[in-house]
Amino acid sequence: MPSYIAPTKDLQFVLHDVLHVSAADTPGYTELEADFTAAVLEEAGKLTSEVLAPLNAVGDAEGCVLENGVVRTPTGFKAAFDQVREGGWTALDMPEDYGGQNMPYVLGTAVGEMFSASNQAFTMYQGLTHGAASAILVHGTDDQKTTYLPNMLSCEWTGTMNLTEPHCGTDLGLMRTKAEPEGDGSFSLTGQKIFISAGEHDMAENIIHLVLAKIPGGPEGIKGVSLFIVPKFLVNKDGSLGERNGVSCGKIEEKMGIHGNSTCVMNYDGAKGWLLGEKHKGMRAMFTMMNEARIGVGMQGLAQADVAYQNALIYAKDRLQGRAVTGVENPDGPADPLIVHPDIRRSLLDQKSFIEGARAFLLWGAKMIDQSHRGGDEAAEGMVSLLTPVIKGFLTDEGFDMTIKAQQIYGGHGYIEESGMSQFARDARIAMIYEGANGVQALDLVGRKLAQDGGKHVMAFFDMVKTFLKDNADNEALKDDFLEPLKAASKDLQAAGMFFMQNGMKNPNAALAGSNDFMHMFGHVCLGLMWAEMAKASQSALDAGTSDPKFYETKLATGRFYMARRLPATGLHLARIQSGADPVMALEADQF
Amino acid sequence: MPSYIAPTKDLQFVLHDVLHVSAADTPGYTELEADFTAAVLEEAGKLTSEVLAPLNAVGDAEGCVLENGVVRTPTGFKAAFDQVREGGWTALDMPEDYGGQNMPYVLGTAVGEMFSASNQAFTMYQGLTHGAASAILVHGTDDQKTTYLPNMLSCEWTGTMNLTEPHCGTDLGLMRTKAEPEGDGSFSLTGQKIFISAGEHDMAENIIHLVLAKIPGGPEGIKGVSLFIVPKFLVNKDGSLGERNGVSCGKIEEKMGIHGNSTCVMNYDGAKGWLLGEKHKGMRAMFTMMNEARIGVGMQGLAQADVAYQNALIYAKDRLQGRAVTGVENPDGPADPLIVHPDIRRSLLDQKSFIEGARAFLLWGAKMIDQSHRGGDEAAEGMVSLLTPVIKGFLTDEGFDMTIKAQQIYGGHGYIEESGMSQFARDARIAMIYEGANGVQALDLVGRKLAQDGGKHVMAFFDMVKTFLKDNADNEALKDDFLEPLKAASKDLQAAGMFFMQNGMKNPNAALAGSNDFMHMFGHVCLGLMWAEMAKASQSALDAGTSDPKFYETKLATGRFYMARRLPATGLHLARIQSGADPVMALEADQF
Repeated sequence: MPSYIAPTKDLQFVLHDVLHVSAADTPGYTELEADFTAAVLEEAGKLTSEVLAPLNAVGDAEGCVLENGVVRTPTGFKAAFDQVREGGWTALDMPEDYGGQNMPYVLGTAVGEMFSASNQAFTMYQGLTHGAASAILVHGTDDQKTTYLPNMLSCEWTGTMNLTEPHCGTDLGLMRTKAEPEGDGSFSLTGQKIFISAGEHDMAENIIHLVLAKIPGGPEGIKGVSLFIVPKFLVNKDGSLGERNGVSCGKIEEKMGIHGNSTCVMNYDGAKGWLLGEKHKGMRAMFTMMNEARIGVGMQGLAQADVAYQNALIYAKDRLQGRAVTGVENPDGPADPLIVHPDIRRSLLDQKSFIEGARAFLLWGAKMIDQSHRGGDEAAEGMVSLLTPVIKGFLTDEGFDMTIKAQQIYGGHGYIEESGMSQFARDARIAMIYEGANGVQALDLVGRKLAQDGGKHVMAFFDMVKTFLKDNADNEALKDDFLEPLKAASKDLQAAGMFFMQNGMKNPNAALAGSNDFMHMFGHVCLGLMWAEMAKASQSALDAGTSDPKFYETKLATGRFYMARRLPATGLHLARIQSGADPVMALEADQF
Repeated sequence: MPSYIAPTKDLQFVLHDVLHVSAADTPGYTELEADFTAAVLEEAGKLTSEVLAPLNAVGDAEGCVLENGVVRTPTGFKAAFDQVREGGWTALDMPEDYGGQNMPYVLGTAVGEMFSASNQAFTMYQGLTHGAASAILVHGTDDQKTTYLPNMLSCEWTGTMNLTEPHCGTDLGLMRTKAEPEGDGSFSLTGQKIFISAGEHDMAENIIHLVLAKIPGGPEGIKGVSLFIVPKFLVNKDGSLGERNGVSCGKIEEKMGIHGNSTCVMNYDGAKGWLLGEKHKGMRAMFTMMNEARIGVGMQGLAQADVAYQNALIYAKDRLQGRAVTGVENPDGPADPLIVHPDIRRSLLDQKSFIEGARAFLLWGAKMIDQSHRGGDEAAEGMVSLLTPVIKGFLTDEGFDMTIKAQQIYGGHGYIEESGMSQFARDARIAMIYEGANGVQALDLVGRKLAQDGGKHVMAFFDMVKTFLKDNADNEALKDDFLEPLKAASKDLQAAGMFFMQNGMKNPNAALAGSNDFMHMFGHVCLGLMWAEMAKASQSALDAGTSDPKFYETKLATGRFYMARRLPATGLHLARIQSGADPVMALEADQF
């Protein structure tokens, strides 16, 4: 039976030693003293490791069951959801006006990692509700906000996002779901949506579906798409639940993982809906959910990697197999523990150095969202917009790889479902796909974000790295192990950007053929920067005579591993990018 | 419903254009004319794509069921197994004396790829039988051979390998299963073995277990391990089946994949067994199975990658989504097919260039086994012994990654079990683990094979590459795209070997910390060499005015992709290796 221990100490380190959140000039941040965040993280840690984590395997084994239009969630999910609601964990960063706790997004994200790590399938029910509520908060009328938000923020009602149809996923312009105006301000929706997470279940009184559809007579393609609020039960003027709407779950899918979350085919048969935001501007409104969701999905990659690593580490310390090549380390036992073997350590450090770097990267991104949303900081807004596809794509690709590495440490036992290691990998797998498959993230990064606002944001990124290197040039403790590798990797990334500029105008394929590599090398440079920042903070703590030198020394050693063994991947990605479009485009379709 | 098309044309190309098997100076090879191998591959292709492939999803969905000690295999497996037996596909490369077909191993391997690709779980029943029969063939007495081999070669009886126990996998010296001599030449075996593939099932009259156990009073650890033949039903003098032996299946495991194969806990309760080979030399006898099994598992990595790729390619051509960035390519449709997008092509070519390179590598290895076993060629024996861990480790690590890439092309549909893409990945996952987890392969390569016979074999490998480069130095068509990259990659590999020599003696961890990287870079150089060979053969065919220029041009373009985009990975692996032991060994166990 796998376990989960909330990484509260490491989250505190990132929030305070590295990101200095309590001192940041952002509304709400002054309340984020270290003892306050520690208390919140501690409580969240208890709930996630004691209540949600034990349900993770149950959810996987039982899955969801559809009977007579009703979806039954796994044993224990409903009771746990009640506990989550009662604890007030469903809307940490939402406004108090509607029942939220008004905490900064960065703290919500730190808590979110724990929820996701302990039980991804379970956490999706509230995660999607949060995304839907955000869209209503930003684009809804006062009436819509009052009608839906209080119950959604408490998760008495949950929410969904309805984009995909059988014949269209990424290319939503092909959408067929129709919304006919009824003349009373409402619309009648007809069509089928698929892959709707939490589309139907038994844990909430009502489900508020946000649905993309086309109003007949509107513009062709994506420009004719609008967003609608379609509640499962209509809501009466007094807030009580009215009649059942014409929306139903036709099927739930058998999936590779996240079995505890119901993935539904949703049929809209003249369902009553109301426009959310402007007519034909549905994509804009949907992207409010989407960007937040993408960061949340990047978090899932990190979260599954962490819980898988924790269990691999326990196994590596417990399992006795073979002897250390440099001499027996466990003379009283029949063999040494796995962790003495260099290749096992190599794998564990691949995981550990990714997880801790990714955690800092994610929380830095979350901090920039606060700076942008709460502080009106446009530079932060531009930067996080640039980095969102990197957070989503890189953290989920790498996160999945890390769950596979963790599973590998178990040998044959990792392949047996009982160990739980397979579930971590199978659950992590979806994060590379949903909320825009990672190829689409890479396309978004290279095809759109790089050139956004005249390339201002990527230039700002390089300036930031340069400034960091310059400001710390005299720091002898960082120079060889951190600054030099970061400089080299950043140079590779710039060379790749330069290659795109010089070749992409003539031939867009020259840029797009390298988009996946660029996303990955960008991710590595971000993690390299995070490790350099963490090393700096750790060195400062050691210099100041910290009472916990081992923690900071471990940070430095883990960071050195990343810089020496993971960051040089940028060179390979650059070589691939510089090979250009030809190797990728040479074949005709029938030659594959 | 996924499909499988046997790659007969490509196998023929490797066998004849590249490896020139029919002309090779090896007994049996003169019979391998192109029309003969084509006929065999054609027939095997029909059987695998029409009979075995359609059962693949059935096996995954139904799995095996244990009831009252009897394992029921999935619907259709028994009938298909009868068809395989009747077709004479169970012992292609086995001696005619015992009912085999006496074909070379290289042809058996080409056929084996198809079996494995079409239905890995099914094919394991005969694959393990083949391995067990090989061990009896090499180490058995005449009596044992006559008693067991004819029925095993026809798969009327199947075989198993029993190594792992709950507390020991890799470290078999810890084994507890005991074999007490009975005084009549037989032994009484007591103990529990786990992860026994095909340990119990309903498709054969008898199951011949090969079991590692310790004879009390023998040497400690691995040196006291012997190998035993333990039949499920004892065999009477006249060859008929006698009483049921004291061996039974206690449980079958719930696994991530290969559900159609029964993975059994086997309990030996005073089971009657007979020594196979010499007392206390069980590991030697077991390794006869093991080496063959490792090459067979490498094949599985390639095979699952191929079937996954084939289905990803169909989807990429069918699924309409988005428009080509360089202009509409499917003006009559609502969108262009996925395959117009550069990142989709990049992924497909990652897969295609791996699969075709791996196929050549595998068959080259198989040819060397023939040269060694049939031709007594010691150089070939040394080379294939060196390359066996690379074939196993590299082809299964990469093969699994490729199934993940193939699944990714399906987007959300790939995560749904119905598409079959998840099964390819879940089935491929085991190949990284069984027959020695890939970390153990890397250890075998760096810790043992590199230095074997004074490093003679690895020197021979480098000489071979050098000779190839020299012999083809005037080939202008190959120079820039193939010879230069191969030279650079080979140089990286040599530098890594040099680093190990200079540092590994002082500190073995300096070599072992880089073992996984070395195995991967070695694999890349082998595939680079294969691509250079294939390019040479293709260019020759084009120069000679082939009637099928498109086939050979496609080969050249696919090879160029590998050399430009995949092979440069050697540089990254070298950088990691040269970072040495420190980054990997710096942390104490409690700092992880």
